[in-house]
Amino acid sequence: MAAEHLEDELVEGVSHADDASSENEHHDEDNRLKPEFLRNVRDALEDEDFDRVYNLVEPLHPADIADLFELFDENQRLDLARAISDLMGVEVIAELNDWVREALLDGLPADVVAEIAEQLDTDDAVAMIEDLDREDQQAVLAELDPEDRAAIEAALAYPDESAGRLMSREFVAVPESMSVGDLIDFLREQRHLPTDFWEVFIVDHLHHPIGTCLLSWILRTPRSIPLADVMKREQTLIPVMMDQEEVALRFQKYALISAAVVDESGRLVGQITVDDVVHIIQEEAGEDALLLSGAGDGDINEPILLTVRTRLIWLVVNLGTAMIAASVVGLFQGAIAKLALLAVLMPIVSGMGGNAGTQTLAVAVRALATNQLTSSNTKRMIWRELRIAMTNGAVLGVLIGVGTTLIFGNPLLGAVIAMAMVINNLIAGLAGILVPVTLDRFNVDPAVSSAVFVTMATDVMGFFSFLGLAVLTGLA
Amino acid sequence: MAAEHLEDELVEGVSHADDASSENEHHDEDNRLKPEFLRNVRDALEDEDFDRVYNLVEPLHPADIADLFELFDENQRLDLARAISDLMGVEVIAELNDWVREALLDGLPADVVAEIAEQLDTDDAVAMIEDLDREDQQAVLAELDPEDRAAIEAALAYPDESAGRLMSREFVAVPESMSVGDLIDFLREQRHLPTDFWEVFIVDHLHHPIGTCLLSWILRTPRSIPLADVMKREQTLIPVMMDQEEVALRFQKYALISAAVVDESGRLVGQITVDDVVHIIQEEAGEDALLLSGAGDGDINEPILLTVRTRLIWLVVNLGTAMIAASVVGLFQGAIAKLALLAVLMPIVSGMGGNAGTQTLAVAVRALATNQLTSSNTKRMIWRELRIAMTNGAVLGVLIGVGTTLIFGNPLLGAVIAMAMVINNLIAGLAGILVPVTLDRFNVDPAVSSAVFVTMATDVMGFFSFLGLAVLTGLA
Repeated sequence: MAAEHLEDELVEGVSHADDASSENEHHDEDNRLKPEFLRNVRDALEDEDFDRVYNLVEPLHPADIADLFELFDENQRLDLARAISDLMGVEVIAELNDWVREALLDGLPADVVAEIAEQLDTDDAVAMIEDLDREDQQAVLAELDPEDRAAIEAALAYPDESAGRLMSREFVAVPESMSVGDLIDFLREQRHLPTDFWEVFIVDHLHHPIGTCLLSWILRTPRSIPLADVMKREQTLIPVMMDQEEVALRFQKYALISAAVVDESGRLVGQITVDDVVHIIQEEAGEDALLLSGAGDGDINEPILLTVRTRLIWLVVNLGTAMIAASVVGLFQGAIAKLALLAVLMPIVSGMGGNAGTQTLAVAVRALATNQLTSSNTKRMIWRELRIAMTNGAVLGVLIGVGTTLIFGNPLLGAVIAMAMVINNLIAGLAGILVPVTLDRFNVDPAVSSAVFVTMATDVMGFFSFLGLAVLTGLA
Repeated sequence: MAAEHLEDELVEGVSHADDASSENEHHDEDNRLKPEFLRNVRDALEDEDFDRVYNLVEPLHPADIADLFELFDENQRLDLARAISDLMGVEVIAELNDWVREALLDGLPADVVAEIAEQLDTDDAVAMIEDLDREDQQAVLAELDPEDRAAIEAALAYPDESAGRLMSREFVAVPESMSVGDLIDFLREQRHLPTDFWEVFIVDHLHHPIGTCLLSWILRTPRSIPLADVMKREQTLIPVMMDQEEVALRFQKYALISAAVVDESGRLVGQITVDDVVHIIQEEAGEDALLLSGAGDGDINEPILLTVRTRLIWLVVNLGTAMIAASVVGLFQGAIAKLALLAVLMPIVSGMGGNAGTQTLAVAVRALATNQLTSSNTKRMIWRELRIAMTNGAVLGVLIGVGTTLIFGNPLLGAVIAMAMVINNLIAGLAGILVPVTLDRFNVDPAVSSAVFVTMATDVMGFFSFLGLAVLTGLA
């Protein structure tokens, strides 16, 4: 897991944008692997011409080889892995989708998995091993060097999705007494440096971080200057138990490239670099749409039964709320039997309320996730959403009211549906902000559970206000 | 815009996580500014005790001062700016939300804005100036140094959201002939280095990039080694016209910290660093939920009239599709008049279809945005979604069918609603994947416009299948 692969790095990879148009023989203009290329690889695989497969795949960057696996059907992946086993380096394994990797690793014996793990930095090795079954995990750990095993076991002892899991245990830490020249000499002599690093941490005798030095500061400073004069004393320290979403927010807010991780007693125990955080930022930001829709983490490589279960749970919950909304309609069966037109128009009121509620909800969930909406400005936000709801409700009410009057020649019906539209837009705006804010206050992720409540509110109130007003005004 | 603020950096900022619990006097456990702290600042402002305001705000990191502005009401922001004008450094300005910054800058004369711009790196200066009105923009540009003006005007000549806008023109580029020692001496002598940099680009005599050197490689290599032996020849080059979303995907896929930007003739013209890309990754990933709901970019600081317009357009489009769905119900008014129970149950079928369609849609839009779903695996994805829809439809169909039979004692009604539920789930699954894939094929952003079509499909088919089957089976 030590990392003096400097030379490896110098030869690995390919130029992924030879020409300024960013297109080349393997990629389309969006940097996706071309279908023709995939077809060629697939044909070669089917012909069992493994040399041709190898020659085709060899020029690709590890991240693109990983993509290739994900684009292939499950039953072709093992064949591909066999054909290009020499290219299946740690970079490819690290880049693979979790599910695809797990399926591939399941086919490999524990000692081979251990061999791969030993070449990885701790954070990547942990990411690879944490997804295995408990049994497989133990088998792989047993095959590791004692030192690597201890490092990985220590990481696995931290909770899932914590900074402790995410961090790498390889970092550079030196005492304050060094000069810039001492540090450069030290780095040149060191055999066990991290693969890449972006800053050097300065620690006291208790191994507590007291400052940090970006490499660019070191490079432009004369050798004789003490590190104490170059380093920045203020730095963002990441507690080892911090949740990865929180870590990602800190990196973003303070524009960090790397950060020191400290344990409960304040000792420096690891570092997190931005390349490990970028995919968390992407996942956490992208999951809102998936969670709001009840599609779980929406990974298209997830086993299908798991996907069915995740989505079905949500759909069954929604079936419950749909039946509650239907029972409201049930109260007005008599009115509907008299004037079936009410049944024709009622879905418009409930549906539009649902749309408006979803808008407010999406905005509120996003603002909560990015810490833009806090208890300090909640009142202002509620008032903002109410004004928006009032305006939109009024416009939509006039449109549907006038339309209904003209089409059905019934001004009373027009007035009733217009009024119901205004009411339901207000309900939508209120529920769209109050539900997520309340859930957040109780530390429930608003993206996961808000939509059920908001939809129920707009459905129930949509039907109730429209049908209720119809009865009240003597329409039916 | 040159940047030798090394010493500034060494003193700016505060320790944002003094203790491992990550809480402190200003922040709560989620790193949000505490309400008590805001109240104190607000009280001091209202007392016009500007010294107290200054002392309260002074210890904050610039990113937190920016947050403070966003949390305050609009009418308090100018007062706050006046009270802490000394602290309103470029870092605060750069961190402010676009809308909040624009409103603040509007209140400042052009020469003051120009003064701020001159202290920023080109990319931040461009981000600040590009949002101004054309007139204000010209006024600020006129106040700039000729050199800075040329740099900013060159950047503004590139399209919005392109790499050319995003890049910084400050970077380190040296010839291949240098040794590690030469480079270190060169960096020590340079007065005009970028604020921070993470790699050194090696260029040929035409200024074409031929390799790159991470600073950590330089630091651990003896002085005598030529750069040609340390540098990596393969690198990801970003064409200057590339869209920022594409840039973000490259950074993510290839785990980049910084990358060279080249013009049409392949000359090195700038660099993009990951800290400028992180917020794009976050925005692009987070906007799916907002776009799918029709809430535009969902910025809570946007002027309210703009928000109303964005959302209203979407709602009016949906009003149109809701009326189409209602007209389908209209075809069955006779049946509903005979059996009002149909009107009670029909929203369940359409609503559940909508939920299932939204799930598939969210997954498809995400997979398209991350290049996981391409023409090479579309067929597999469609088949996957159909199997999911079939399973979920069957389960929901049995639940609602049995439930309806038991509650209303009408097995035929139960069979009809079960059948309609299965049909509508299939429609939802098909539309949920085919609509976004088709839009993407025509280069329309699927997140923006898919939901209208999918909801229309599930509404129309939900009503049509349930009411149609009811009539066909002679229920009503």
